[in-house]
Amino acid sequence: MLDLLRSRPPRTSLQAPLYTDPDMFALDIDGIFATQWLFATTDAEIPDPGDYVTVEFGTLSLIIVRGDDGTVRALHNVCRHRGARVMTDRRGSTARLTCAYHSWTYNTDGTLLHASSPGETFDRTCFSLRTAHVRSICGLIFVCIAADPPTDIDDLEEAVTPYLAGFDIASAKVATQIDLLEEGNWKLTMENNRECYHCGGHPELACSLFATWGLTADTVPPELAADWDRSLLADAALQERCDRHGLPWKIIEHLTDRDAGFRISREALDKTGESFSVTGDRLSQKLLGDLPDFRLGRTSLHVQPNAWFHGLSDHVITFAAYPVSADRTLVRTTWLVAEDAVAGEDYDVDELTYVWRHTNAQDADFVQLAQQGISSPGYVPGPYMRSEDQVEAFISWYTAHMSSHLDGHLDGHREGRAQA
Amino acid sequence: MLDLLRSRPPRTSLQAPLYTDPDMFALDIDGIFATQWLFATTDAEIPDPGDYVTVEFGTLSLIIVRGDDGTVRALHNVCRHRGARVMTDRRGSTARLTCAYHSWTYNTDGTLLHASSPGETFDRTCFSLRTAHVRSICGLIFVCIAADPPTDIDDLEEAVTPYLAGFDIASAKVATQIDLLEEGNWKLTMENNRECYHCGGHPELACSLFATWGLTADTVPPELAADWDRSLLADAALQERCDRHGLPWKIIEHLTDRDAGFRISREALDKTGESFSVTGDRLSQKLLGDLPDFRLGRTSLHVQPNAWFHGLSDHVITFAAYPVSADRTLVRTTWLVAEDAVAGEDYDVDELTYVWRHTNAQDADFVQLAQQGISSPGYVPGPYMRSEDQVEAFISWYTAHMSSHLDGHLDGHREGRAQA
Amino acid sequence: MLDLLRSRPPRTSLQAPLYTDPDMFALDIDGIFATQWLFATTDAEIPDPGDYVTVEFGTLSLIIVRGDDGTVRALHNVCRHRGARVMTDRRGSTARLTCAYHSWTYNTDGTLLHASSPGETFDRTCFSLRTAHVRSICGLIFVCIAADPPTDIDDLEEAVTPYLAGFDIASAKVATQIDLLEEGNWKLTMENNRECYHCGGHPELACSLFATWGLTADTVPPELAADWDRSLLADAALQERCDRHGLPWKIIEHLTDRDAGFRISREALDKTGESFSVTGDRLSQKLLGDLPDFRLGRTSLHVQPNAWFHGLSDHVITFAAYPVSADRTLVRTTWLVAEDAVAGEDYDVDELTYVWRHTNAQDADFVQLAQQGISSPGYVPGPYMRSEDQVEAFISWYTAHMSSHLDGHLDGHREGRAQA
Repeated sequence: MLDLLRSRPPRTSLQAPLYTDPDMFALDIDGIFATQWLFATTDAEIPDPGDYVTVEFGTLSLIIVRGDDGTVRALHNVCRHRGARVMTDRRGSTARLTCAYHSWTYNTDGTLLHASSPGETFDRTCFSLRTAHVRSICGLIFVCIAADPPTDIDDLEEAVTPYLAGFDIASAKVATQIDLLEEGNWKLTMENNRECYHCGGHPELACSLFATWGLTADTVPPELAADWDRSLLADAALQERCDRHGLPWKIIEHLTDRDAGFRISREALDKTGESFSVTGDRLSQKLLGDLPDFRLGRTSLHVQPNAWFHGLSDHVITFAAYPVSADRTLVRTTWLVAEDAVAGEDYDVDELTYVWRHTNAQDADFVQLAQQGISSPGYVPGPYMRSEDQVEAFISWYTAHMSSHLDGHLDGHREGRAQA
Repeated sequence: MLDLLRSRPPRTSLQAPLYTDPDMFALDIDGIFATQWLFATTDAEIPDPGDYVTVEFGTLSLIIVRGDDGTVRALHNVCRHRGARVMTDRRGSTARLTCAYHSWTYNTDGTLLHASSPGETFDRTCFSLRTAHVRSICGLIFVCIAADPPTDIDDLEEAVTPYLAGFDIASAKVATQIDLLEEGNWKLTMENNRECYHCGGHPELACSLFATWGLTADTVPPELAADWDRSLLADAALQERCDRHGLPWKIIEHLTDRDAGFRISREALDKTGESFSVTGDRLSQKLLGDLPDFRLGRTSLHVQPNAWFHGLSDHVITFAAYPVSADRTLVRTTWLVAEDAVAGEDYDVDELTYVWRHTNAQDADFVQLAQQGISSPGYVPGPYMRSEDQVEAFISWYTAHMSSHLDGHLDGHREGRAQA
Repeated sequence: MLDLLRSRPPRTSLQAPLYTDPDMFALDIDGIFATQWLFATTDAEIPDPGDYVTVEFGTLSLIIVRGDDGTVRALHNVCRHRGARVMTDRRGSTARLTCAYHSWTYNTDGTLLHASSPGETFDRTCFSLRTAHVRSICGLIFVCIAADPPTDIDDLEEAVTPYLAGFDIASAKVATQIDLLEEGNWKLTMENNRECYHCGGHPELACSLFATWGLTADTVPPELAADWDRSLLADAALQERCDRHGLPWKIIEHLTDRDAGFRISREALDKTGESFSVTGDRLSQKLLGDLPDFRLGRTSLHVQPNAWFHGLSDHVITFAAYPVSADRTLVRTTWLVAEDAVAGEDYDVDELTYVWRHTNAQDADFVQLAQQGISSPGYVPGPYMRSEDQVEAFISWYTAHMSSHLDGHLDGHREGRAQA
């Protein structure tokens, strides 16, 4: 596998086994998901003490729970007695975490309160639920199960806070959440998200994007000249508006040069330019947080390895990719609106989700086609185009991290053998 | 795997791969199910010549059939011609075993009677169905596919016969049988059965067990003092009654010191104390065999690796665990009543099965929770409590047998290499 | 695996892992399906330019498409960009092959016409769909993905053309096609087809076969003497009729001595002797091609590794086995009638397919029984009977080819190591 990773020519897709082999999937979980910061949920989903969600990355299950003290913690969803899964619902609210098997009962901070075996004497303090690191950045909750999490998450926080703070995601309200099981490797899900070269296959989404999205002055074909001019004007107007409100709009991109790789940008939308709707009009009548205007474009954040976000003035959408197996990935999409927005009055859930419900379903089809074709002996890695620069960035980040992880492994083995 | 087995600290659950890895499952089939005596069925299920059942342990399929001579035999359910499965029904009655593929026809003792290929000359005596060892102990039929089965099954027979003979299981009548597929490793099914620490999750079963079940004088909490006294009185009365009838009641336990590990006991039931019902009342109006009284408590037998039994005066329940895959186990439960008990008159099937239908379903949930949690990278082996002594005994038996099996394997390999 | 192949005693079925192991399945795809000519479809299924079918052998997916020039080509169904499956329907008609993902568009000869990334400059000629070899023999289309396909397909063509030309399969009409998923290894599907020892399990098929089918003068049992005489007379009459029309009827068998192993024969049918019906009567009122008579028996062709065919004067049936996984095989059966035969008038689809719909379903059961039994630890390879000579021939061909393939592999590894 290490050879396959290292021998990748620049700007080409990965060799087939890296997308299809169950053993490689296990290595991905070890080398990426057990070492990196992962997007798990939002503060908005667990606003009150005792609120929790459970999330799964492969067979890894975590409980993200808000304690009585308001602190959010990540606990391994595995009882310290005989290993039973403790919380089985995807979300809920509870004062205590009680394992259904033998009633071992934990506090929301993971400490074992009660092991109901009369006459038993043992040191309860040794059997707290194992914890993972948690980090809330402007209401987006990231977790890391590594002993020493990557520290450059600090840089990410510093960079994105000026963009995200105004949305006040932590106080937002969950309008709805939809899970979609994609029949493809998690890397294909992420690659698909990193380019709009395929956006011809997204008719609903295309309504709010300029037809020239992703192009540059020298690549705009003549027939799109008018669209190009229109998009330049819209971006200029957006930047002027942002400057006026003291809001940032420049692209910040650190996709390959760090652990917590990310990219954030703000861009104008087509039509009336307010939101991700077919007309460009707002989808919720209430502004999020302390945002001053409905026409602030879309703020888009991508965080490696498993998430992306779109912030509009009226709603925020979070997308999390949870790997399930070598050829399956769960994509969880959450729509957040202002705390005081009222369903049926300020927004309609069907309208709010229209564009991305369809876009997600189309993406799931694309990912499945890629998984099927790559599984064939006829597959050979192909070239990434200029409009796929961010795919290349993601794959570079992945190969660098996995190579170094596997290197460390091999070194460990070698040392082990040398000692033996 | 051998390292994982050997490095287990005393009184802790096994490392995850021993419960989850498909390769380990194959080793379990080789090291345990292909070497030990396994509970398969009862004489009561195949009372007449030609009656048969088929049972599966992983991909191993056996036909247990009563011959014309009344003898029960175990035959590999694999045609000697081209390997087709011979009998496809779970049970039936037949004079001959005919393979559906090419009509090779075997006697119920496995000898090939007829291979319908005109003009063919070959030695039919070389193509009998392969046999396994069979042993009926008080009507419980055990099989072993090893060439040299463990001989200490003799000790088991000698020890349990005084307890079981009176039930006359061989002559009993099958009231009903229910299969339940548990989503967990077979060892988790067995571990779960070896303790009542989780019995708070069994409200129906709890009705007939004393609240102090599994506790000892020094571990009874104050609030259960009255229950404790009541159970002591009930046990004393039961023992007096047994002594009067010449029936044994002392616990015999050989769970770790032999191949055919077992434990048998007789204990008083709560309430009216007759049977496994919510009220303690009998569930069938007819006494089994030559039992003298409805109030003889419950006689419970556990036999490693795959079965347990409860004998009440009015009915017997057999439980067999058939491993299916690393994460699936079929639990077959059979309710036996007196030969002359009439359904709808002497017993009602729904009432008869009420407690254990619910208890089994609850256990299936517990086993699934354990399998899920153990599959997580967050799992670490946990401690067995004092009330889980028999779990520890089972796991000790298992690790000892598997270690010695894998040792033998490695030695074989080493020898093979040394010779090469 | 090589040891298992080499140690096979003559005339015995293979060791279990060769039928059940997923790794062995992958080796079969490499060693047989990626090296040999495979039956894929017929010219009749893709009569016009732009017509295509997709076929799968394991994860290998091919598009068989007729170009604007009338030439049939086999293209790997994998986009050269990022590996997506290009054509997802089982059949269709199209002027261009467009990948749904990023709209890369190929000509029906596989050349890349258009990669819709504005401003992109790259050499389109380097990104044609990869091709496989194609060979149409009397309308039967074979493909081979090897760089150097076996050349003795020439001999096959030369031998079978005198038998098949008259059917004019290329101009025939597809009456219907049925897919059946058999729960067994592809070799069991082929073995099952190579003998009629099991034909007692085919009551519908048995109507048109003589009861003595597969027997020889010295093996006919006394009770079938009359059938034997009748079949000899029918064959003699058939041969006289063929000689009169200048049609061949002698058996040609090259099952073990070449890559493109085959067997072709012509035999009389029982009853009225016209077709595969219960009465022996024709099932379509139109003669195929330029055939002179309805009573020309059945012309049966077997081609290794994956197909067999029956040619009657009124219809042709093609059978293709597509391996899916170690324990699953897709059998696709296609009924072809004369170009000018009209459904509901000249033939009835239900009647046309009656015998083989039932026969295929029975065969699927047999294959499943064999797969189940062989998967048991109780399986030992069994003897092939005299009536299974062609099974032995198929298995000899398979073991010879796989042994030599694996040998080459090992040599490659050894060389690689020696150089390292």
